[in-house]
Amino acid sequence: MNFEHLLKQVAFIHEIDKVKYILRKTKLFNSERNENDAEHSWHLAVMAIILAEYANEPVDVLKVVKMLLIHDVVEIDAGDIFLYDTNISHTNTAAEQKAAERIFGLLPTEQAEELIAIWEEFESGETMEAKFARAMDRLEPLLQNISNKGGTWKEFDVRYEKVLEKKGVIAKGSEHLWAFAKELIDESVKNGILAVAD
Amino acid sequence: MNFEHLLKQVAFIHEIDKVKYILRKTKLFNSERNENDAEHSWHLAVMAIILAEYANEPVDVLKVVKMLLIHDVVEIDAGDIFLYDTNISHTNTAAEQKAAERIFGLLPTEQAEELIAIWEEFESGETMEAKFARAMDRLEPLLQNISNKGGTWKEFDVRYEKVLEKKGVIAKGSEHLWAFAKELIDESVKNGILAVAD
Ligand SMILES: [Ca+2]
Repeated sequence: MNFEHLLKQVAFIHEIDKVKYILRKTKLFNSERNENDAEHSWHLAVMAIILAEYANEPVDVLKVVKMLLIHDVVEIDAGDIFLYDTNISHTNTAAEQKAAERIFGLLPTEQAEELIAIWEEFESGETMEAKFARAMDRLEPLLQNISNKGGTWKEFDVRYEKVLEKKGVIAKGSEHLWAFAKELIDESVKNGILAVAD
Repeated sequence: MNFEHLLKQVAFIHEIDKVKYILRKTKLFNSERNENDAEHSWHLAVMAIILAEYANEPVDVLKVVKMLLIHDVVEIDAGDIFLYDTNISHTNTAAEQKAAERIFGLLPTEQAEELIAIWEEFESGETMEAKFARAMDRLEPLLQNISNKGGTWKEFDVRYEKVLEKKGVIAKGSEHLWAFAKELIDESVKNGILAVAD
């Protein structure tokens, strides 16, 4: 039998194991342990399945899940970028584009092109699927920070106004989830785990 | 706004964070570090998306992905069962059934029922989706053991005949992937990383 096509896919499956070593700034729920990108991607994919009913318009759930499962694969080459890091552009950087081409490029051509397109769609954030997937990516660390009594907000002195600005994009994916998130953020100020700007 | 429905979903999202602490016997690729169930579930879901073309019959990929993302959630209560542990029944145990009811039961009723049904379908292994999902679950540790020059085979003295028996179920999901896996297993004997029975 000829396994040439399959061997390319296995090379990709092997390569993305590295995602399990990329640590995020955010900690697990009620924990001091940093989350890695594989755990994060798994959690977001489950969240998308559970919360799909709240998308502002009906979404292709499989496409959302694909986006979330592979959205951080580029960090194998390009590294994790912290949401509140003001020194770095958070849009699709040249390094990430190059990483996508190398890593997805391990796959057979047609499949590589499909996954690069899905990753670019997520990064552009324009389709309903991308907006909803990005809402998941903002919601999970919010829930984690609250469970950790401030988490990265306290650790990196992030204030209420900045959190509102960054988390506000949840509304593009789901007005209902944003109403919930906004309430959690306001409560965090009342509970003293999130400071307002001086 | 009323968040009663959503709060149940958030309770589930919070609870399943525990999956990130459940360690498997198998190590990451080329590594001494044990894999956890969240990383494992993420990897299997990506594999299913990449390898779906090899299913013996066309599969509903979203359903396969759902199965793989949630198949180990019951281990929060019931613990990980090692494939080659001969002291424990590997079929759907009473402890796992109870765990499924408690954990998925955190969700709103309709969604809880949907996910319990998907989990039971995976466990029963009768539909094409379940057979293909189970093939992914057998294929990943095979690739890991080979990358680790024997891995759990050496560590727990598992022999060729037992590996063939356990991995043979890959064929129910995909004859093509089984032909590939069989070749890898045979090569492992030649390369001295898998022993034959005395
Ligand atoms: Ca990231």
